[in-house]
Amino acid sequence: MKKVKFMNKVIKKMSRKVAQPPGTLIHVGEQKSETVTLSLIRYNKDILEEKKMEYPHEFLLEKDFKGVCWVDISGIHDIPTIETIGSTFNIHPLVQEDILNTYHRPKFEESEEYLFLVLKMLMYDAEAKNVISEQVSFVLGPNFLVTFQEQEGDVFNPVRERLRKALGRIRKMGPDYLLYALIDAVVDNYFLVLETIGEELENLEDQLLENPTPEVLQTVHKLKREMIFLRKAVWPLREVINGLEKSGSKLIKKTTAVYLRDIYDHTIQVIETVETYRDMVAGLQDLYLSSVSNKMNEVMKMLTIIATIFIPLTFIAGIYGMNFEFMPELKWKIGYFFVWGIMAVIALVMLLYFKRKKWL
Amino acid sequence: MKKVKFMNKVIKKMSRKVAQPPGTLIHVGEQKSETVTLSLIRYNKDILEEKKMEYPHEFLLEKDFKGVCWVDISGIHDIPTIETIGSTFNIHPLVQEDILNTYHRPKFEESEEYLFLVLKMLMYDAEAKNVISEQVSFVLGPNFLVTFQEQEGDVFNPVRERLRKALGRIRKMGPDYLLYALIDAVVDNYFLVLETIGEELENLEDQLLENPTPEVLQTVHKLKREMIFLRKAVWPLREVINGLEKSGSKLIKKTTAVYLRDIYDHTIQVIETVETYRDMVAGLQDLYLSSVSNKMNEVMKMLTIIATIFIPLTFIAGIYGMNFEFMPELKWKIGYFFVWGIMAVIALVMLLYFKRKKWL
Amino acid sequence: MKKVKFMNKVIKKMSRKVAQPPGTLIHVGEQKSETVTLSLIRYNKDILEEKKMEYPHEFLLEKDFKGVCWVDISGIHDIPTIETIGSTFNIHPLVQEDILNTYHRPKFEESEEYLFLVLKMLMYDAEAKNVISEQVSFVLGPNFLVTFQEQEGDVFNPVRERLRKALGRIRKMGPDYLLYALIDAVVDNYFLVLETIGEELENLEDQLLENPTPEVLQTVHKLKREMIFLRKAVWPLREVINGLEKSGSKLIKKTTAVYLRDIYDHTIQVIETVETYRDMVAGLQDLYLSSVSNKMNEVMKMLTIIATIFIPLTFIAGIYGMNFEFMPELKWKIGYFFVWGIMAVIALVMLLYFKRKKWL
Amino acid sequence: MKKVKFMNKVIKKMSRKVAQPPGTLIHVGEQKSETVTLSLIRYNKDILEEKKMEYPHEFLLEKDFKGVCWVDISGIHDIPTIETIGSTFNIHPLVQEDILNTYHRPKFEESEEYLFLVLKMLMYDAEAKNVISEQVSFVLGPNFLVTFQEQEGDVFNPVRERLRKALGRIRKMGPDYLLYALIDAVVDNYFLVLETIGEELENLEDQLLENPTPEVLQTVHKLKREMIFLRKAVWPLREVINGLEKSGSKLIKKTTAVYLRDIYDHTIQVIETVETYRDMVAGLQDLYLSSVSNKMNEVMKMLTIIATIFIPLTFIAGIYGMNFEFMPELKWKIGYFFVWGIMAVIALVMLLYFKRKKWL
Amino acid sequence: MKKVKFMNKVIKKMSRKVAQPPGTLIHVGEQKSETVTLSLIRYNKDILEEKKMEYPHEFLLEKDFKGVCWVDISGIHDIPTIETIGSTFNIHPLVQEDILNTYHRPKFEESEEYLFLVLKMLMYDAEAKNVISEQVSFVLGPNFLVTFQEQEGDVFNPVRERLRKALGRIRKMGPDYLLYALIDAVVDNYFLVLETIGEELENLEDQLLENPTPEVLQTVHKLKREMIFLRKAVWPLREVINGLEKSGSKLIKKTTAVYLRDIYDHTIQVIETVETYRDMVAGLQDLYLSSVSNKMNEVMKMLTIIATIFIPLTFIAGIYGMNFEFMPELKWKIGYFFVWGIMAVIALVMLLYFKRKKWL
Repeated sequence: MKKVKFMNKVIKKMSRKVAQPPGTLIHVGEQKSETVTLSLIRYNKDILEEKKMEYPHEFLLEKDFKGVCWVDISGIHDIPTIETIGSTFNIHPLVQEDILNTYHRPKFEESEEYLFLVLKMLMYDAEAKNVISEQVSFVLGPNFLVTFQEQEGDVFNPVRERLRKALGRIRKMGPDYLLYALIDAVVDNYFLVLETIGEELENLEDQLLENPTPEVLQTVHKLKREMIFLRKAVWPLREVINGLEKSGSKLIKKTTAVYLRDIYDHTIQVIETVETYRDMVAGLQDLYLSSVSNKMNEVMKMLTIIATIFIPLTFIAGIYGMNFEFMPELKWKIGYFFVWGIMAVIALVMLLYFKRKKWL
Repeated sequence: MKKVKFMNKVIKKMSRKVAQPPGTLIHVGEQKSETVTLSLIRYNKDILEEKKMEYPHEFLLEKDFKGVCWVDISGIHDIPTIETIGSTFNIHPLVQEDILNTYHRPKFEESEEYLFLVLKMLMYDAEAKNVISEQVSFVLGPNFLVTFQEQEGDVFNPVRERLRKALGRIRKMGPDYLLYALIDAVVDNYFLVLETIGEELENLEDQLLENPTPEVLQTVHKLKREMIFLRKAVWPLREVINGLEKSGSKLIKKTTAVYLRDIYDHTIQVIETVETYRDMVAGLQDLYLSSVSNKMNEVMKMLTIIATIFIPLTFIAGIYGMNFEFMPELKWKIGYFFVWGIMAVIALVMLLYFKRKKWL
Repeated sequence: MKKVKFMNKVIKKMSRKVAQPPGTLIHVGEQKSETVTLSLIRYNKDILEEKKMEYPHEFLLEKDFKGVCWVDISGIHDIPTIETIGSTFNIHPLVQEDILNTYHRPKFEESEEYLFLVLKMLMYDAEAKNVISEQVSFVLGPNFLVTFQEQEGDVFNPVRERLRKALGRIRKMGPDYLLYALIDAVVDNYFLVLETIGEELENLEDQLLENPTPEVLQTVHKLKREMIFLRKAVWPLREVINGLEKSGSKLIKKTTAVYLRDIYDHTIQVIETVETYRDMVAGLQDLYLSSVSNKMNEVMKMLTIIATIFIPLTFIAGIYGMNFEFMPELKWKIGYFFVWGIMAVIALVMLLYFKRKKWL
Repeated sequence: MKKVKFMNKVIKKMSRKVAQPPGTLIHVGEQKSETVTLSLIRYNKDILEEKKMEYPHEFLLEKDFKGVCWVDISGIHDIPTIETIGSTFNIHPLVQEDILNTYHRPKFEESEEYLFLVLKMLMYDAEAKNVISEQVSFVLGPNFLVTFQEQEGDVFNPVRERLRKALGRIRKMGPDYLLYALIDAVVDNYFLVLETIGEELENLEDQLLENPTPEVLQTVHKLKREMIFLRKAVWPLREVINGLEKSGSKLIKKTTAVYLRDIYDHTIQVIETVETYRDMVAGLQDLYLSSVSNKMNEVMKMLTIIATIFIPLTFIAGIYGMNFEFMPELKWKIGYFFVWGIMAVIALVMLLYFKRKKWL
Repeated sequence: MKKVKFMNKVIKKMSRKVAQPPGTLIHVGEQKSETVTLSLIRYNKDILEEKKMEYPHEFLLEKDFKGVCWVDISGIHDIPTIETIGSTFNIHPLVQEDILNTYHRPKFEESEEYLFLVLKMLMYDAEAKNVISEQVSFVLGPNFLVTFQEQEGDVFNPVRERLRKALGRIRKMGPDYLLYALIDAVVDNYFLVLETIGEELENLEDQLLENPTPEVLQTVHKLKREMIFLRKAVWPLREVINGLEKSGSKLIKKTTAVYLRDIYDHTIQVIETVETYRDMVAGLQDLYLSSVSNKMNEVMKMLTIIATIFIPLTFIAGIYGMNFEFMPELKWKIGYFFVWGIMAVIALVMLLYFKRKKWL
């Protein structure tokens, strides 16, 4: 059985930050990608420019561009890049610290110049039966959106496609709508994860009913812990999305707020599904316990029936195996057959008794 | 044992929506009916017109009709129909999306032009011991009410009858009262479902007391899950009805608000009953466990009594079955009968001991 | 074992109301009394008139009487009576519907003309170990109080006596004080029920400690369910009494509000006692389980001790029962006694081992 | 095993009050002291007068005394005394009723003329392992404090000493500070009770680890119930002290409010400790269950090992005890020793198997 | 097994304070250090003076120093020192009492002249598997910060270093920022403790899967109790930090409030981790129980299989061990081998049956 290194997800490496002055930029978490990529998309209703680079440069600074500028940074372990981006977009050092700490819980923070969001992207590694979480941070300014990911993923690709093909209203709207579209992509992705886990739960149930081995229970325990982890990732979301919707910040236009309400509904559904799954995992544990105890009862009944039938018979056989010189029955011609008869009667009575007691 | 495909109800197919721009109309859920039916009822105090059609047409648009227009759409998988209806009644694309997503949780949304409600109709399939849920959405405008169902049901029929026969005050009131009457019909229907489940619970209890088989436990587990499902369907109702009552929208007249309060009371009773049933299902599980453990205890006592009586007797028989050349007892005339006597005494002492210990 | 028809209490017959227009008067519940009795008491500081009748008549309508008019209706299944009373005192049809629905939860409703209260009177049927609940509704107007009971009970009798004998301040006060006195009588009665249940719990505990039979557990389960039922009846009381006290209605004079605060205190005590009893019933279940498991452990130890002592001894006896031609021990003069000695030593060692392990 | 008469504490004798008009003075509870004692202390910065009497007399009424008058009544079963005190200090009949009801829950009530507090003094009877509760009521007026106790206790003695010796600031302050000092004495006393229970818990844990007998479990159950009782006594305290602190009554001077905040902190600590103890008692139950199940497992292993080793051996012995005429092995010279050898091998293999399985 | 003296941490020695007038200074807790050390650091942007002393002297009083004065007192058992400090900085006697009571729960108190905070520093003694808690109190004035520790620790050292080396902005800010830096050091230290406990949990899990001994369970129980203790220490933190942030006191500058928000985030993460660990410890208990029950099931199956195979075989052997004179089979030449054959068949059938039942 593979050891489950769950703690990593929860607390490890947080201690690297201990005893550092606040605002010291330290990358907390696993480095998931080798390289850092900056992918830039600048667009308005009419044009769209796209660029990829490895280091932030002057392109970012062209402040006279009329439209939305989306900077997507993949690979946040490179502190100088984050610092340059931070100073370019005027991001507070404490916020930069939060961006670098990949164990941060989802949060929403409002300042006069920008809105800051931390979310978790989730993936489910079906083989290891592991929920993998990746942090994504958003900084929304008046005409820009900066996103920070641990590694380049494809969750944002559909949004990029819609931008490129000018599908829907996305090209006509501001960076707040882009933010909405990206959060929506992240939350929608949760449903994929939940569906996979749901199928896992169904499989486990079938296995438990057919053959409740300790290994299956182990998997149930594992899943239960993944649920705890999942719950920690999705519960704060409610508060985050609600905070965003209710913030009243000038950075969120009224037309976008309607869409955020929609995400809020989805978030509630994700949370409820996680809670339902938790109930169901608890139900699977009960199912295992009663399956095992049923098996055990069968085993015990088997033993009891065999033992209670044969113990008296063996006793009778023992009686006539005694070597007393004077044992009248031993001399009888039909003694042997008579004993067989008595034994048969005893066995029959026992069987009938068990039948009546519904043990058979 | 039939496999329980519970997840379907919770999350499946939600993933079909992933990576679509918001407002894209996709039907999420099972298609429960083949055809789409639009049933229209237009009425005021004096007249009532009724019409059935398969596609929305101009009849809907006669905006100069003085009275209430109720459009009931059965079968929501047909996206063009929903779109036409949507544009006719000026329904926001996101609301249309919600109508098409049959896994949406009950909700209440208020806009300046209409009120939007999502509820669940419940049925109980006694054979499969399944609670079946069907989504019904309401769009209430100043002089119209549009309802969307997955399939044509008969829950609304009593209301139709009352309209046709002009029973009660329904013909004299506006579309808000019609909305109330329909919600009342939906909530009243919950009591039927709860009553059937209540009877199921009583049956299960009787079965558990008489013969606690693993199959009965399976049914208890199944019912427990149905309770989780039921709970998810009825809990948000409280909030929905309360929101509707407290909305202060001009679309709800003051005279109707009194009636909504009444539905709220019913909703509370439904929720309390579901909670009581949950407690009772948990009680049934306890009952099963103690029944099974009682049976097991009986079995174990049986084994213990038989074994502890006969093991010493068999030992004595074994003693006198030994082939030592010099065993004085074997020569005694009464040896054999003496041994029988000793055995009888031992058995009696044992039986008395068990009696005193209340094992017999 | 008698079947427990619990559901009746919770939901049954509610379904009779399904598909009826709102405000349709239907009696929901068991008809507990054959006849309907209207008992009227009109009083002020100086005089008291009392009358009993079977149908409401003009006596009720003498609106120029200076003082308080208390109409107590026993037997609410007779719909015409309720309707006449309703129209006489101007009671809203939905309120009349609530009065007739004896499965309604305790509630408080305020209108401009009257206050409406639903409470539960509780009795404990010690034989059937059943909590019986009876609904009582109060309509408090500016100079009248109408009470509706399912059957004539004696809970109100002490109040009637106080009225007749002009004990305390009751004759000097208005109908709000009468309402208080009646609610007080209802709540005080709860203490009698709780005391009986408390004694029941003590008895059960004694029985569980002496002889934990499955029947006693059954009673514990039954009591647990009665607690669920009791809880449903008393929890909303808190809200009801609080609502009444805080309503600020002109119908409740300030001098009476002090007394309502006192009832509120009692209500809290009732609720706390019910919660304590629930904890204690849960404790009784634990007690049963550990009692049973202790008994089982004793049984198992018995088996183990007898079996582990005699199995090796029987094996030795078996050895010397073998028929090998060449078995030197069999020829020894002291062989037989030697074997007895070895057996005694083995048994002793075993016993000492069990002693040290504290199994004996 | 002694029967546990817990209910007494919770509800008994409450029923004596049923069917009495409100404000009727009835002593509800056990009469704990034979006599009634009125102990009076009048003091200001300069002087202190002390008097003991058995009936209230004119001394109480000298209203022109400049300073604080503290009347401490021990033994509240004497209704005339309470009535006289009540009318002297102008206490509302309902408050008098509350004073006499020793099963009242802790409460705080504010009127224009006085503040009324009910608290519980706790003692722990280490022998009976019982938490004993005694009610103490406080009526705080502008220049007096009246305290009602069930029996003369020594909880207030340290405060009396401080008054007599003019220690600290107590003589310089008003009756509100005296009230604070007395409440502080009551709450501080809780720590003594909690400490004793804490030691009890430690003892029980040691006993459970060494020898988990059913008797110890009984004590754990008993303690658990005492915790329920304790909890009921201390939980409302929070609200009471908070109400007193936040009341804004003129009877509480601002300088005293700071001290009340301090008591509030202590109250929180008491509540938290009670909650922690509850968790720990639950932990003790778990400990008992796992101890017992460990013992049982040992017993079962013992049985299994002995039985599974000897059953095959006995079978072999049985084989060669058969009386067939033609059994070649019986004729072998080394047959007997060969059989011994086989048996030894089987036993060894078994033992190794058990060893590998970690059953030994 | 070592006895676990948990209570000490919770309540013991609190009773020493009973019956003392409020504001009486008594040291409640263990005396952890022999000596008292006063370490003073006075700094502003330009200079930094440091001094160590054993008794407070005039250095403290130089009130005309422009900058921040940080007094750190280690060893709070010396009451005269605390009193001198208290009167120097004008600290209320009740606050002094709180500082001396090392069992105080974390709290925040605001007065016009200073802010008072109590926090817990945590250490984990990996050998004793004990969470050790040390109280630290902060008094923040307009230009000073006084900290009280039980013993000299190194948690504050990194802050001292930053002060000495003028790292970050700390030298440029006021005493509120110093307070923040110290709280940050305390909270960051929690992560170290949590990480160690996390590793402990992983170890325990591995041990439970490999060999679920009662000793491991004991450790799990112990850890569970440490979690209760940890929880009590960290839960109030949320409230404390929030109170500090929201206080609106002039002593906290706006620029510092941003940093406090950051600590608040960390606090939430600490609390969530503790809750997650609690869930995981509960999971470990379940894991133990199912591991043990799996082992037991294996044992029981072993017994059942061996017994049910050999009991019938032994019976047959017993039959042919009987000494009847007329037993035809005994005379058969192949009788003996025939019996062996029958036995083999029975054993085989049994084994196949067990195989089919998946017991093997």
